[in-house]
Amino acid sequence: MSTEDLNDLRMSDDVRPLYLAVKKHIEENVIPIQEEFYSIGEKLADRWSYSDRQMELLEGAKNKAKEAGLWNFFLPDAETGQGLTNLDYAYIAVELGKAPLASETLNCSAPDTGNMEVLERVGTPEQKEKWLQPLLRGEIRSCFGMTEPNVASSDAKNISTLAVEDGDDWVINGEKYYISGAGDPRCKVMICMVKSSPDAPAHKQQSQILVPLDTPGVTIVGPMHVFGHDHAPHGHMHIKLENVRVPKTNMLLGEGRGFEISQVRLGPGRIHHCMRSIGQAEEALQLALERSTSREAFGKKIYQLGKNVEVISKMRIDIEAMRMMVLKAAKAMDVLGNQEARIWIHMIKAMVPERVCEIIDQSMQMHGATGISQWSPLSAMYAGQRTLRYADGPDEVHHMVVGRNEVREYERNKS
Amino acid sequence: MSTEDLNDLRMSDDVRPLYLAVKKHIEENVIPIQEEFYSIGEKLADRWSYSDRQMELLEGAKNKAKEAGLWNFFLPDAETGQGLTNLDYAYIAVELGKAPLASETLNCSAPDTGNMEVLERVGTPEQKEKWLQPLLRGEIRSCFGMTEPNVASSDAKNISTLAVEDGDDWVINGEKYYISGAGDPRCKVMICMVKSSPDAPAHKQQSQILVPLDTPGVTIVGPMHVFGHDHAPHGHMHIKLENVRVPKTNMLLGEGRGFEISQVRLGPGRIHHCMRSIGQAEEALQLALERSTSREAFGKKIYQLGKNVEVISKMRIDIEAMRMMVLKAAKAMDVLGNQEARIWIHMIKAMVPERVCEIIDQSMQMHGATGISQWSPLSAMYAGQRTLRYADGPDEVHHMVVGRNEVREYERNKS
Amino acid sequence: MSTEDLNDLRMSDDVRPLYLAVKKHIEENVIPIQEEFYSIGEKLADRWSYSDRQMELLEGAKNKAKEAGLWNFFLPDAETGQGLTNLDYAYIAVELGKAPLASETLNCSAPDTGNMEVLERVGTPEQKEKWLQPLLRGEIRSCFGMTEPNVASSDAKNISTLAVEDGDDWVINGEKYYISGAGDPRCKVMICMVKSSPDAPAHKQQSQILVPLDTPGVTIVGPMHVFGHDHAPHGHMHIKLENVRVPKTNMLLGEGRGFEISQVRLGPGRIHHCMRSIGQAEEALQLALERSTSREAFGKKIYQLGKNVEVISKMRIDIEAMRMMVLKAAKAMDVLGNQEARIWIHMIKAMVPERVCEIIDQSMQMHGATGISQWSPLSAMYAGQRTLRYADGPDEVHHMVVGRNEVREYERNKS
Amino acid sequence: MSTEDLNDLRMSDDVRPLYLAVKKHIEENVIPIQEEFYSIGEKLADRWSYSDRQMELLEGAKNKAKEAGLWNFFLPDAETGQGLTNLDYAYIAVELGKAPLASETLNCSAPDTGNMEVLERVGTPEQKEKWLQPLLRGEIRSCFGMTEPNVASSDAKNISTLAVEDGDDWVINGEKYYISGAGDPRCKVMICMVKSSPDAPAHKQQSQILVPLDTPGVTIVGPMHVFGHDHAPHGHMHIKLENVRVPKTNMLLGEGRGFEISQVRLGPGRIHHCMRSIGQAEEALQLALERSTSREAFGKKIYQLGKNVEVISKMRIDIEAMRMMVLKAAKAMDVLGNQEARIWIHMIKAMVPERVCEIIDQSMQMHGATGISQWSPLSAMYAGQRTLRYADGPDEVHHMVVGRNEVREYERNKS
Repeated sequence: MSTEDLNDLRMSDDVRPLYLAVKKHIEENVIPIQEEFYSIGEKLADRWSYSDRQMELLEGAKNKAKEAGLWNFFLPDAETGQGLTNLDYAYIAVELGKAPLASETLNCSAPDTGNMEVLERVGTPEQKEKWLQPLLRGEIRSCFGMTEPNVASSDAKNISTLAVEDGDDWVINGEKYYISGAGDPRCKVMICMVKSSPDAPAHKQQSQILVPLDTPGVTIVGPMHVFGHDHAPHGHMHIKLENVRVPKTNMLLGEGRGFEISQVRLGPGRIHHCMRSIGQAEEALQLALERSTSREAFGKKIYQLGKNVEVISKMRIDIEAMRMMVLKAAKAMDVLGNQEARIWIHMIKAMVPERVCEIIDQSMQMHGATGISQWSPLSAMYAGQRTLRYADGPDEVHHMVVGRNEVREYERNKS
Repeated sequence: MSTEDLNDLRMSDDVRPLYLAVKKHIEENVIPIQEEFYSIGEKLADRWSYSDRQMELLEGAKNKAKEAGLWNFFLPDAETGQGLTNLDYAYIAVELGKAPLASETLNCSAPDTGNMEVLERVGTPEQKEKWLQPLLRGEIRSCFGMTEPNVASSDAKNISTLAVEDGDDWVINGEKYYISGAGDPRCKVMICMVKSSPDAPAHKQQSQILVPLDTPGVTIVGPMHVFGHDHAPHGHMHIKLENVRVPKTNMLLGEGRGFEISQVRLGPGRIHHCMRSIGQAEEALQLALERSTSREAFGKKIYQLGKNVEVISKMRIDIEAMRMMVLKAAKAMDVLGNQEARIWIHMIKAMVPERVCEIIDQSMQMHGATGISQWSPLSAMYAGQRTLRYADGPDEVHHMVVGRNEVREYERNKS
Repeated sequence: MSTEDLNDLRMSDDVRPLYLAVKKHIEENVIPIQEEFYSIGEKLADRWSYSDRQMELLEGAKNKAKEAGLWNFFLPDAETGQGLTNLDYAYIAVELGKAPLASETLNCSAPDTGNMEVLERVGTPEQKEKWLQPLLRGEIRSCFGMTEPNVASSDAKNISTLAVEDGDDWVINGEKYYISGAGDPRCKVMICMVKSSPDAPAHKQQSQILVPLDTPGVTIVGPMHVFGHDHAPHGHMHIKLENVRVPKTNMLLGEGRGFEISQVRLGPGRIHHCMRSIGQAEEALQLALERSTSREAFGKKIYQLGKNVEVISKMRIDIEAMRMMVLKAAKAMDVLGNQEARIWIHMIKAMVPERVCEIIDQSMQMHGATGISQWSPLSAMYAGQRTLRYADGPDEVHHMVVGRNEVREYERNKS
Repeated sequence: MSTEDLNDLRMSDDVRPLYLAVKKHIEENVIPIQEEFYSIGEKLADRWSYSDRQMELLEGAKNKAKEAGLWNFFLPDAETGQGLTNLDYAYIAVELGKAPLASETLNCSAPDTGNMEVLERVGTPEQKEKWLQPLLRGEIRSCFGMTEPNVASSDAKNISTLAVEDGDDWVINGEKYYISGAGDPRCKVMICMVKSSPDAPAHKQQSQILVPLDTPGVTIVGPMHVFGHDHAPHGHMHIKLENVRVPKTNMLLGEGRGFEISQVRLGPGRIHHCMRSIGQAEEALQLALERSTSREAFGKKIYQLGKNVEVISKMRIDIEAMRMMVLKAAKAMDVLGNQEARIWIHMIKAMVPERVCEIIDQSMQMHGATGISQWSPLSAMYAGQRTLRYADGPDEVHHMVVGRNEVREYERNKS
């Protein structure tokens, strides 16, 4: 493994131009439009829509990305994208994490990236034609229907939305919530995790199936809030499925293969989340520095008071430690594959969101009351990171996997 | 001190009937109307108003409290209220902390209680007639204007809203924010902390003055959010004061005596906050128990998984420890007076809100994603407790006072 | 329960003279001899002995305690002692916690107090005559044989030292360690937990039996160290029992009643430990204050640097919170009995030693390298407190009991 | 920087044979002799000596290292050693951290490595001949005299041991403590930090000077303990210097250049410490796994109880995160030089020893009482790591440097 050593965490030389181009795009085409874009959004009568001006700004930036050859760089397959390694992607993701509108202008927003990856790898030609192509062109958006309100979905085997065969169709009944992105008026399709085969072994009961959102029986009940935020127009929606009938050709990969597909999507998605989280932590630290060097109390700058210098030091130390861990997890996926690298993925998923929440909270505390208000991005950042402590399973599940693996490795080495 | 030993933390025998009557009132008159009251509020076109039905419900409960002799029991002066000790009040406050509408039905909401106490102790007969009486009758509400967006108001000497004498008036210019309660349509007056005497010694520059909210030049700019929540219709408002002219007779106690008045209000207010916080922590624990005993994952109840039993144990231990500390601080105020007891007040202010935030967060984590949504009260509880880590000064200021006092005591005992 | 409310944590008026007399005894008769007593001990050729001068000092202080009527005040039974409540004892124990030689001069050292209580309550007249009387007179010392090296004795059902009937005798084989006090040359008897009835139900297999240390087959292998400390001449000894034959009359209470006896001893012992721990924490804080107000670095007193004032504040806050919890647990035992109060005992056992270890560690850190050396008492204090995180079961077992009880209470209230 | 990117943390291909040879040497020549070597030491009448058999074992292993070409590989200079990079050294150091006798058999024990590096870089030909050569041959050992009992030596400017010129000599008076290695009978020389120029600017007052330990006036008072450990025969000695007269030619580099020399020694030394710390943490985790998979309580393996799996998970995650940080700091020193890399060094010095202490403590807790006894290496490991939270300055000083640097960087980027 000397040439692909897991500790070689350098960006590839030939990806550096792309990395620099993305940074330039963010600076020149994204940062300048963000304020206008979001301030229009706050005043819309219908929070789940876009104004013409918003679409003009957004499509303008998307076109610039297309012209610069940055569109769809995310896809890890040479035929349809740039073929980035996870490690190289991680370097780019930290930049995306600093500007909330950046990902969409490059067509690499969650959960579309995961959905496109899945369709690209396991979709039929018809599925690709109908859903992957418009997604790749940025014409529509999509969502992923996993979490359910009535069961502990940290244990995916609990999923209870039922799909029953009926002639050439599957008929689906159930309830999903925290379906991110389903609030967007352009969101047209959900990849939905269903229980299709209740009599099969525990790991073969689930399937993933394409559900167009305009199918009769699909009701978007409303947004789930995160603290008091609704994250409109993206949104985390509550959706009911009542006798939703879709053709059998909408099934992905095959009946009972839902968990198999999850392996495809989960690895990279966690890396992307965690690397963006580090961008968020860096941003929270910079905000803490800005505030604590510009305000005074008791005759001193805020940063000079009490423990604040030590708090800042610990933020920096932990950001660097988390950054190295995320890069290493990305490298492990590149070298070892998703399956062998999975403990690294669980490690960063257990480590990063919890500590980033703390870092944001510490930054808030240095801001005084402004830190938790709409005048600062910190509370929305906190809400976003807090949801990651549940997404893809709560922290506790990841620790359970890592700890049990450690025991297993010990026992294997012993014998 | 044998008969008034600080460690005798029993409720008074003669207050027990009042305590029981308040519990009964909450059960019979408050809990049954809360759901209707708040669900109407969520659907109002104008979030900063009440519907007729809401007022009917609220006034009904207030009348029942008056009939039961529970109205205004909070005032710690025998002439105008029940003359409760802080200790006895603390026992009642923990019950109030469990039902958000309870305090108002008994006319003991913040910040009105503090304002009424101040008016009762330092108000002129005219000030009492004009503002204290309608407050005591529950006809109007009030707010307290302390925090400012442009300075670190953790150091009260930084307050920069300026009051300048002009003939028989004070003319006020400045900006306040997080003015809790100013969103309520019934809120008519603000006790406003101003800098009136910039040339006096640092602790004599501030005054507190009555500002009717309908005075020309007072603009309520809008609500400050707390993690996305606006807490309508109560609200934490952003207020501008531009050439606001009030007569000199609106000054409380006298020019330059603002900090002196703060001593009156701060002690009991902190006790009330902290005791209600313990009610909130207890509620968060009960919600964690409800959830973790009713959900299953990996073939076990949630509470049986991993560290959860230990998390529950630590919640209980810390709730009991905080409860004893708050009771002791209340007793210290009763026996020693606010000034001598101030270290106890700083101790609980530094200890309680931070740990209660953690307890609520731990309860959220056991709930899965529902815990941070509008389907659970936990996120609003968290937002409320998080603001207390700034209110009356951030945690850090209270630790600074406690730590320095410890050094001072050590040096005094040594010499 | 109005007259015996659990929150009345005052010392009894009629115990105050005893409390003051103990304080006076410590100041006048114990503090002045401690330095000479311990410095002789450090230089003895045989670390497991006393010099004549040491015995002279010790017996002198014991005689003064006898003359002052302070001897054996601990026994919670009016016939043989003062009949102190647990609450009153707790106030005295915090003073004992500050001077390591104090307890022995008053005949209330661990584990003798627990052993005397057990003998007094369940001993036969012959057992009392032979062992209780010389213990009460301070002529001999004793030890308690519970923990075993080869099993996880946090679960007492694991105890494997076997006692087998043979004629009029029990014949014992097994191994014990961390037998505190067995290093003392005056230690003559062990109350030994054995498995006598392996076929009985799990809670009826254990017995407690008196084993004179000079019985053939008893070998004191050597001292167990605690972070390098051997705590000579008291010691925590490793003991082997090989075909140790004792008469059946040495059995306490009856075969299979070992756990029943544990209920007698465990409650008060934990309270005593925890209250002495608070004395230790207070001492650690005073040492931190002494050091941090007298040393300078970077042009400031140590306490003025970085987070140190906040660390001091948290030490004080937590000491006061733990003190109230220990007093409340003592009161609960007085009012409710050991059985009903047991959750309070588990709560303080889980809370106090862990936090006191941290407080001592924080005090060390303010001392620089001296803090961990023999020039400071802090490292021996740390070692002592660290053992308490295992004694009577590790922290984790106490949290397990508290957490499960909380679940049980919730489910009982619900139904 | 593309070819020497800071994130390329691979071991050099051409060092891998050395790395493997060191591992082989440890397995074949060190592990097999350690038990005999240390158990003889425990029984020596004079704890500050070696038996003939011990020297035979030790010299045998040293000779094998010499034969294998592993002797003195540490020196970062091609002429006198292997010229290892810090990064490559770090990989080897983690292996050294697992076997306490390993370093000496390879002549790379602290503080000799630092002393040899200093002599090699700044020594005169005569100083090298007299002291460096026998050190390089492993004939003598050395110590470093920095810390003083009477001042807060976290601030090196406080050093008060005075050196005064007198003719051709310096005459030194003062007191040092925690002088590691000075207990060894083979220790012949101390590099001593003295105040030589009290009237110079603050950073130019200190010098480093060679003091042979047999110089009249040097008294080794005795060992400083760490908790109860004396770490004989290495030891951390308390040394008095009374009118110690050494020739001016013993001065290193020049009067007033003491801090300059510190820059040479401090960087690599901290890296070595921290990397060995990671070896220790790994060892503590393996011991926790061994214990918790082999013991049972309450019908389960210890690791299956409560939070233990999560504790194990966090140990693993933090070990990996610390490992990457130490490798990165080493790489930064290689690429940027000690001065530019110093923030990375401060970061790991602030991060690693504190967390490794916790990891060892958590491993202890899973062991029950055995974990803190002499039957387990954990308490000695803890004591060793605990001293590192003071060595080269306490954690707090490192956080202060990191935090202030962050502020400085922020302000520089802003302007």
